[in-house]
Amino acid sequence: MKNDPHLSEELTRVAHLLADAARDVILPYFRSDNLGADNKLEGGYDPVTVADRAAEAAMRDVLAQYRPQDAILGEEMGVKAGTSGLTWVLDPIDGTRGFVAGTPTWGVLIAVGDETGPSIGIVDQPYIGERFIGTPKGAELIRGDSRRTIRTRAARPLSEAIVFTTFPEVGTPADAVAFQAVASHAQLTRYGMDCYAYALVASGQVDLVIEAGLNAYDIQGPLALIRAAGGIVTDWEGGPAHNGGRALAAANAEIHAEALAILQKTNAS
Amino acid sequence: MKNDPHLSEELTRVAHLLADAARDVILPYFRSDNLGADNKLEGGYDPVTVADRAAEAAMRDVLAQYRPQDAILGEEMGVKAGTSGLTWVLDPIDGTRGFVAGTPTWGVLIAVGDETGPSIGIVDQPYIGERFIGTPKGAELIRGDSRRTIRTRAARPLSEAIVFTTFPEVGTPADAVAFQAVASHAQLTRYGMDCYAYALVASGQVDLVIEAGLNAYDIQGPLALIRAAGGIVTDWEGGPAHNGGRALAAANAEIHAEALAILQKTNAS
Repeated sequence: MKNDPHLSEELTRVAHLLADAARDVILPYFRSDNLGADNKLEGGYDPVTVADRAAEAAMRDVLAQYRPQDAILGEEMGVKAGTSGLTWVLDPIDGTRGFVAGTPTWGVLIAVGDETGPSIGIVDQPYIGERFIGTPKGAELIRGDSRRTIRTRAARPLSEAIVFTTFPEVGTPADAVAFQAVASHAQLTRYGMDCYAYALVASGQVDLVIEAGLNAYDIQGPLALIRAAGGIVTDWEGGPAHNGGRALAAANAEIHAEALAILQKTNAS
Repeated sequence: MKNDPHLSEELTRVAHLLADAARDVILPYFRSDNLGADNKLEGGYDPVTVADRAAEAAMRDVLAQYRPQDAILGEEMGVKAGTSGLTWVLDPIDGTRGFVAGTPTWGVLIAVGDETGPSIGIVDQPYIGERFIGTPKGAELIRGDSRRTIRTRAARPLSEAIVFTTFPEVGTPADAVAFQAVASHAQLTRYGMDCYAYALVASGQVDLVIEAGLNAYDIQGPLALIRAAGGIVTDWEGGPAHNGGRALAAANAEIHAEALAILQKTNAS
């Protein structure tokens, strides 16, 4: 796929159609009075909205029309088998807690790739109107009529870096300790931006996003986006991150190595 | 002032001019490569940008033209005395850490009032293009050509409420304990939204914002906005909040009382 520019262009075109479809479905629900939120996890707070389900259905309709041969892994409706060796990985509303709180930090996440991972990824924020997209040709931020190439930040020491995670608990207690070990060396630590933080890595604003407890559909869109913008995304052992779990998203190899060393040391101790 | 609709309309008009001026100055700097950030506090991280200073200068120029008789308290340039009994309270970029991280959570804060506190307040987010304004006539969200009345949320128990603060440390260690005592009873706690969280209270999205270590210019714009939208803002003792310190911003009197009781109990113990 990476070596087939025609296929890549076709998939990019379809990825935009998916993001357009999701955007149209979701926006009327954002900040509406009745979100239809319910709890997926008993005892936990994981709201899933009517918008989430409707947006995934709309994206699946687009794929049925243009890419029926591809597999689909979606947050809401699970797996559909395919015959092409390609899989679309969809999270219609990543950051549902942000969504119900009215913060424009949630996003539509879209990725497509083969078993080695995604090579096209989108993080779309419909309310702000920003679409961050990474393809084998590079990464762009599209907003209205504006379209510009984005690149991750140049290397700088962790002591001058900005680090994000969504909530201070991060994951398990051990995950939180490891995250704080990295954050304590950074210039600035910020919380609460959901998937939007990955878009900030891709667009050269911040250096690191470190998260845990992810599903494949939480990370594949951001992963392909950040890689296309010049960054690097692995798990906390330096291995592939596209199947989910714990993710270390970095602007460049140098800051990745510095953060990874601290995560591994903290995990081992 | 609250009983003089002509004066109130004149001040509202000028408040919009101030926000327009700040927006024009600041936006070109947001996410630009060279922010001109330096450290105000030795050993701390309190970036202040060229944009911050230039925006306050632009707002002071507007006031010199239209309201030379009023006093000014600005974050960057201090106090200017007046003769009218009215004071404009300006924070050109509230949330400078968010600003340097590229998150559209910072805002231009503008308030005007007398010694009893502000009666007109603006929280403006130039990148998203949202202006939240509260006046004696009510509260509105203006975005592009869209303009709609906003109201705070109806009362619900804390156990169903959404609580915000900007960073988990909140303020002193005792402040953090008191905040967490409230947050532990809430349905959802979120971080990292800077002044934008107050706009979410005003627009009926969330129930509480609890912060500490504020200056008058951090709280007066949000305070007047939230009050105009039907909410209530006090300090953690239930007294006036417009001089800064610790703020409890609530969507309604019921949730305010429930949160205040926990803060006071935790502080006393």
